[in-house]
Amino acid sequence: MKLYDGGRAANPRRVRIFLAEKRITVPTEEVDIGTLAHRTAAYAAINPMQRLPALMLDDGTVIAESMAICRYFEALHPDPPMFGAGALESALVEMWNRRVELLLLLPVTTVFQHLHPYMKAMVDPQVPAWGEANKPRVIDFLSFLDGELKDRSFIAGEHFSVADITALVAVDFMKVSRLAVPDDLQNVRRWHSAVAARPSAKA
Amino acid sequence: MKLYDGGRAANPRRVRIFLAEKRITVPTEEVDIGTLAHRTAAYAAINPMQRLPALMLDDGTVIAESMAICRYFEALHPDPPMFGAGALESALVEMWNRRVELLLLLPVTTVFQHLHPYMKAMVDPQVPAWGEANKPRVIDFLSFLDGELKDRSFIAGEHFSVADITALVAVDFMKVSRLAVPDDLQNVRRWHSAVAARPSAKA
Repeated sequence: MKLYDGGRAANPRRVRIFLAEKRITVPTEEVDIGTLAHRTAAYAAINPMQRLPALMLDDGTVIAESMAICRYFEALHPDPPMFGAGALESALVEMWNRRVELLLLLPVTTVFQHLHPYMKAMVDPQVPAWGEANKPRVIDFLSFLDGELKDRSFIAGEHFSVADITALVAVDFMKVSRLAVPDDLQNVRRWHSAVAARPSAKA
Repeated sequence: MKLYDGGRAANPRRVRIFLAEKRITVPTEEVDIGTLAHRTAAYAAINPMQRLPALMLDDGTVIAESMAICRYFEALHPDPPMFGAGALESALVEMWNRRVELLLLLPVTTVFQHLHPYMKAMVDPQVPAWGEANKPRVIDFLSFLDGELKDRSFIAGEHFSVADITALVAVDFMKVSRLAVPDDLQNVRRWHSAVAARPSAKA
């Protein structure tokens, strides 16, 4: 198999951290988003959505979408569980991962895509008012999360999960979006220090 | 347990169709989005995100986010599988469900939220330029899907799955967003007629 990877973009990093937590090594081909290599006909033949990452299996089957790739590896290598264990914990991990995706990662990347000059060539049309509208959403969700993290170690409970991976990637991507975690969100900052110190965070 | 349901909104319908396909009946309480009942303190105590649907278990645990609720029921009642069977099929269902969510359902609901006068009270701020920018995305994805459905019965392969539920709800919601499936997308229209004829579609 081969993983088509995408450098510093948020979703490729989610998959790399997941694989590092699982201690899985996959042959990788870098697709340079900076030169729009993901928009070429050659890459569109692999993933018509022209998004990264994508996993090609040995028979040519392609699994795209970060969480689909992660779930494939979770099924093949269940330990340690990253999507929860059992019906209830799995549902709560899914809930938290979805919340973090929709209410943190998506707003953070939207601010970048619709406000950063670098993205003009990729986002058509950029809608700056939409970028601005997403800034307070990021802070609102982080404030909510701060209350949640008061009494627990990780986003979805007492175990590290994909929800932590998504949140770590989102918070780290805030720098690119020129956003900052407010100083008074001490629980978010404590959580971030802990997950950023894991070896997988270097991925 | 009790399902907090939300009438004609897209996500509550996804869960209702899922439960109908599984032949599962759950006690339900209707939360009237039209009168902003989901924005009250009473409902925020159930789901702080003020989103519908939400499932409350007998011990008071709340599972929010449609796909988290569906996965919980999938784990308790695996047959018929709606998230695929086995590592590869499950990954492909997840890939297609994600594609349909991000590239069809989200744009369709964005058009409604940012352009429809009815949504002024709920979406702050409405960004009409962002609504307009999403219209061609809907048609682009449906055109891509039309090619995919040329040689297969359902969105993710030969079995009905959550990806079909998400796509059915998205296509039906297009009417609310004042969008229409182009006449020449014959495969999408054939697929839609087939899935809309299932008893679950009445949910």
